[in-house]
Amino acid sequence: MSMEPLPPTIRWVGDANGHLELLDQTRLPQQREVLKLTTVNGVIDAILRLAVRGAPAIGVAAAYGLLLGVREQSPGDGMLITEARDVAARLLAARPTAVNLGWALDRCLKRVQAEPKLQTLFYEACAIHADEEAMARGIGENGKHLIKPGNTVLTHCNTGRLATAGDGTALAVMFAAWRDGVKFRVLADETRPLLQGSRLTALELQTAGIPVEVVADGAAAGIIANAFVNLVIVGADRIASNGDFANKVGTYPVALACAAHRVPFYVAAPLSTFDARLPNGRAIPIEERDATEVTEFRGQRVAPVGVGARNPAFDITPAGLVTGIITDVGILRPPFAAGIKAALVGSR
Amino acid sequence: MSMEPLPPTIRWVGDANGHLELLDQTRLPQQREVLKLTTVNGVIDAILRLAVRGAPAIGVAAAYGLLLGVREQSPGDGMLITEARDVAARLLAARPTAVNLGWALDRCLKRVQAEPKLQTLFYEACAIHADEEAMARGIGENGKHLIKPGNTVLTHCNTGRLATAGDGTALAVMFAAWRDGVKFRVLADETRPLLQGSRLTALELQTAGIPVEVVADGAAAGIIANAFVNLVIVGADRIASNGDFANKVGTYPVALACAAHRVPFYVAAPLSTFDARLPNGRAIPIEERDATEVTEFRGQRVAPVGVGARNPAFDITPAGLVTGIITDVGILRPPFAAGIKAALVGSR
Repeated sequence: MSMEPLPPTIRWVGDANGHLELLDQTRLPQQREVLKLTTVNGVIDAILRLAVRGAPAIGVAAAYGLLLGVREQSPGDGMLITEARDVAARLLAARPTAVNLGWALDRCLKRVQAEPKLQTLFYEACAIHADEEAMARGIGENGKHLIKPGNTVLTHCNTGRLATAGDGTALAVMFAAWRDGVKFRVLADETRPLLQGSRLTALELQTAGIPVEVVADGAAAGIIANAFVNLVIVGADRIASNGDFANKVGTYPVALACAAHRVPFYVAAPLSTFDARLPNGRAIPIEERDATEVTEFRGQRVAPVGVGARNPAFDITPAGLVTGIITDVGILRPPFAAGIKAALVGSR
Repeated sequence: MSMEPLPPTIRWVGDANGHLELLDQTRLPQQREVLKLTTVNGVIDAILRLAVRGAPAIGVAAAYGLLLGVREQSPGDGMLITEARDVAARLLAARPTAVNLGWALDRCLKRVQAEPKLQTLFYEACAIHADEEAMARGIGENGKHLIKPGNTVLTHCNTGRLATAGDGTALAVMFAAWRDGVKFRVLADETRPLLQGSRLTALELQTAGIPVEVVADGAAAGIIANAFVNLVIVGADRIASNGDFANKVGTYPVALACAAHRVPFYVAAPLSTFDARLPNGRAIPIEERDATEVTEFRGQRVAPVGVGARNPAFDITPAGLVTGIITDVGILRPPFAAGIKAALVGSR
């Protein structure tokens, strides 16, 4: 069934004196609450508690957050660059794994150094927002032919309009195929601990009219072994220069199952998700989040009182398990190092 | 911290006219409620809704359930065998994957055919109960030397006193090592959808004073990749004659990760869990449970209304990923077929 469209994930309202609107993703699908933010602290808080999430979306939100933070201080033009650097450092500390956060902030800082005005930060945030939308479209168009009529596609976490500006990454591929009239169905890993698959991916696919069922994360491997899945497409939070990538925890075991059963395993990500400075996945910092995300459920205790948890938010999938990387400039194939280098050079 | 011991998982109170007590596992760890059952329907309901669960525990509960069901009908001695067969068939249908259910019922039926009295069913249920306790002790003793001081052991689902009569299977190994003074720690997969790891395994280990932390199921592979785990021990619901085995869904991806990173992966199970009739894992029936176990959380909706789920309760791990099978008669090593055959012949 098709449903009422969701409010935009990220929207800037007005000119450089305007405000940022974020759809609070912690409350979906039960509630559709839009946050109105006028301070950088509001943006940092939204990133920390995952009200806004998904590597590309965090990058766009941070660019607007930088504008808000500098605007709050109303620095003279001489102090604007220093102030922007301070605000950017605070935003960057909010989440360590997704590279898009640093990528967007670096891009804004470079521009404002060349032209130290508040208006520059506004224009650059808008440009990043528009670029991410264009990249999402490109990913969808480049990947859509991978999905064949009758396929079952499995995905992990959420990589659609809620995770990005625009159509998303892995879900952008599905949306593009569906718009072309290809009929297929999706299995969405529920994606513990925060259930982005069950709450957000299921919602986005249902809203688009694409048939979707949820599975427990641990069930994906057995379902793949039973030949129920034709194709897996996931997103990424950071891709090293050899093709190793970080994505939401639970991605790696899906990739292992695909390799064991020769099911194609694709990553979908814009060029802003590549980190050419890192030789491989071991260099990607992995955020460890609060234990209560695992031991509690919406404030209700699950584990016995006194028992803690390990809660890495991401895992690393080695490039050797990846069939291809669907980017806005085309599909990269293994071995990835040369293709990644060429794509990043070409994008400058 | 050590805590107050749990009530017995399964207890028969009185003689053949007595009643069955089951600790309701759906309410743990928050509530400790003991069910008093006097009818076979009560036992079937408890098995269906997982108030009693774990392959060995289901077998023992079913044996007592058979006694209750036949007793309700008060058949004359001439009709007792027919009645017992009918009741056994109803119990057997409650859960298809764990072989112990059928094993225990077959054993009772064989005895009652030789000696068609209600008292026979009572004695045989008590004997199965005692045998399972002895098998659990044997598993613990046979496997305990695998755990070395300082180790981190990862496990999936719940395989302790709550899953069996006695000390358990995988957890029996841990309890035995701990009693010998070996200091180690445990990571417990939370085990979606019903969170037996987070609720039950964490509770049992905490009660015993063994350090335990919970992890999301999807996090196990990344944690294994990072060399934080020395050893994995899991239980089994049915083991085919080649060593392929069914266990709680999410076991297979843990085995894949262990194989990829050369971490020893052990299965612990009594001989009652082997099914010599089955050539391999593909022949094991996999129970698919209600979608709401995945789409809801303790009655609270998670997925959007209108989105369903696939919910296989078990997956199959191929024997090729198994380092060894810890049984009550010793540790079997690959290739498993000959060892399994010899162990089962020896046990008759």
